[in-house]
Amino acid sequence: MPIQAVVFDAYGTLFDVYSIGALAERLYPGQGSAISTLWRDKQIEYTRLISLSDPDGEHGSRHYRPFWDLTRQALRYALQRLGLPLSDAHEEALMAQYAQLTAFPENHGVLQTLRGRGMTTAILSNGNPEMLASAVQSAGMADLLDHVISVDGVRQFKTMPVAYGEVARHIVAEKSDVLFVSSNAWDVLGATWFGFTTLWINRQGLPFETIGRRPDHTGSDLRAVLDVLGLVA
Amino acid sequence: MPIQAVVFDAYGTLFDVYSIGALAERLYPGQGSAISTLWRDKQIEYTRLISLSDPDGEHGSRHYRPFWDLTRQALRYALQRLGLPLSDAHEEALMAQYAQLTAFPENHGVLQTLRGRGMTTAILSNGNPEMLASAVQSAGMADLLDHVISVDGVRQFKTMPVAYGEVARHIVAEKSDVLFVSSNAWDVLGATWFGFTTLWINRQGLPFETIGRRPDHTGSDLRAVLDVLGLVA
Repeated sequence: MPIQAVVFDAYGTLFDVYSIGALAERLYPGQGSAISTLWRDKQIEYTRLISLSDPDGEHGSRHYRPFWDLTRQALRYALQRLGLPLSDAHEEALMAQYAQLTAFPENHGVLQTLRGRGMTTAILSNGNPEMLASAVQSAGMADLLDHVISVDGVRQFKTMPVAYGEVARHIVAEKSDVLFVSSNAWDVLGATWFGFTTLWINRQGLPFETIGRRPDHTGSDLRAVLDVLGLVA
Repeated sequence: MPIQAVVFDAYGTLFDVYSIGALAERLYPGQGSAISTLWRDKQIEYTRLISLSDPDGEHGSRHYRPFWDLTRQALRYALQRLGLPLSDAHEEALMAQYAQLTAFPENHGVLQTLRGRGMTTAILSNGNPEMLASAVQSAGMADLLDHVISVDGVRQFKTMPVAYGEVARHIVAEKSDVLFVSSNAWDVLGATWFGFTTLWINRQGLPFETIGRRPDHTGSDLRAVLDVLGLVA
C-alpha cells in the first residue's frame, strides 16, 4: 500500500456546503435551495475567473481575494440574481453559518481511524486560513488533521497545478502516493490531471465529468477512503 | 472617438445559444430549458477547467480540446445528469443545430452600420475555426466581419489573457481602443481586466458580477454598440 497521506478537500467534502440551505430557507422562504445552489456555483466561478485572468502573476493572481470575501460576494450575487432583498442582518447570519458548516456524519469516524493507523491527514482547500481554522474548530476536527493547507499561500485557486502543489510544501511524498479525496467532480478531475491518486465521493449519485481521466476510485461517502486503503473502521 | 475596432463574442452574443432549447424540448419534452442551461454551463466549465489545469503549457493546455468537442461532451453530461437517454440521432440533431444557431434579430443591422462607417469588426470566440465558420456562414455574417478570431491558435480559453491577446495578432490597436462586446458577464469581466473597453449586452436584465470592475458600458441589446460609438443606424 503506497499511499502515505490522505488529503481532503474541505467545502463539499468534509463540510456540507448545502447544509446552509435550511437557514437560507428560513430567511427567504421558498428560496433556500435556489440560494444555496446559486451561491455555491458563483463562489466557485469567481475562484476560476480570478485564477484564469492572471495565471502567471508573480505573486499569484493580482485579482486574488480570500475565499471568505468571494463567498460573501457570491452570496450577494445570488440574492440579487433571485431578486431578493439584500439585508446586512441576513448576510451576517448566513456568513456566520458558513463559518461553522455541518460536517457529514461519517467524517469523524473515518478521520479517527486514519489517525489511529498512523496515516497523515490533511485538508487542501480554496478557503483562506482563517475560515478553515473556524470550520475545522467548530467541526471538532482540529486533532484529527496533521495539516490544514490553504491555497492562500500561492494566491491562486484549484484547479491550478500551483494550488495542488501546496501539498508538497507540507507533506513529503510522491504525488501518486497521496490520496486526494473530494466530493467535487471538478476538483477530482484537476487532482487526477495533477498526478494525485484520487477518490471521488459521489454522495449525490451524479455522473462524472465527460472530459479528462476517470478518478482512480469512487465511493458514495467518506468511508470509501477506508475501503481504498484496505482499512476497517 | 478613439475606438478603432469592435470585437464581438460569438456564442451568446451574436448567436443565441439558448435558441437550441426549442429543439431540445421537442426531443426531450419538458426538459428543453434544463438541457440548454446545463449544456451551456458545462460547456463553459470545461473550457475553464482545461485552461486552469495547465495554464503555462508551452503550446497551450495539454488538456486542450476544440470547443466543438467540449460542446458535445457537455451535451452528453447534461443528458446524463438529467437522467435522459443518450441517443446518437438526438445528439447529432442537437449538434447540427448548434452549428447553425439563430442570430439575435438586431445583429445584422448593427454590423452593417458599423461596416458602413468603416469600423473594423471581428469575432473573438472560444469556438474553433470550423464551427465559427459554419455559424458565421449560416447566419449570413461572412461579409460583415473583417476577422473571425478563435482561441484555437493559442489552445487556451477565455478569460485567459493569452486568449484575449489573440486580437492583437489581427488588429493593430491599443487595447483600450478596442470595444469588446459580450453578453456573457464573465467574458466582460475578463475583457475589462485585460484592458479592452467593454460593453456588456445584458439581454436578460441580470445583475453584473459582484467582483471585478464594472464594464465601461452596458446595454440591453446589440444596438447599444451604436450608442456607445455615437452612431445612428
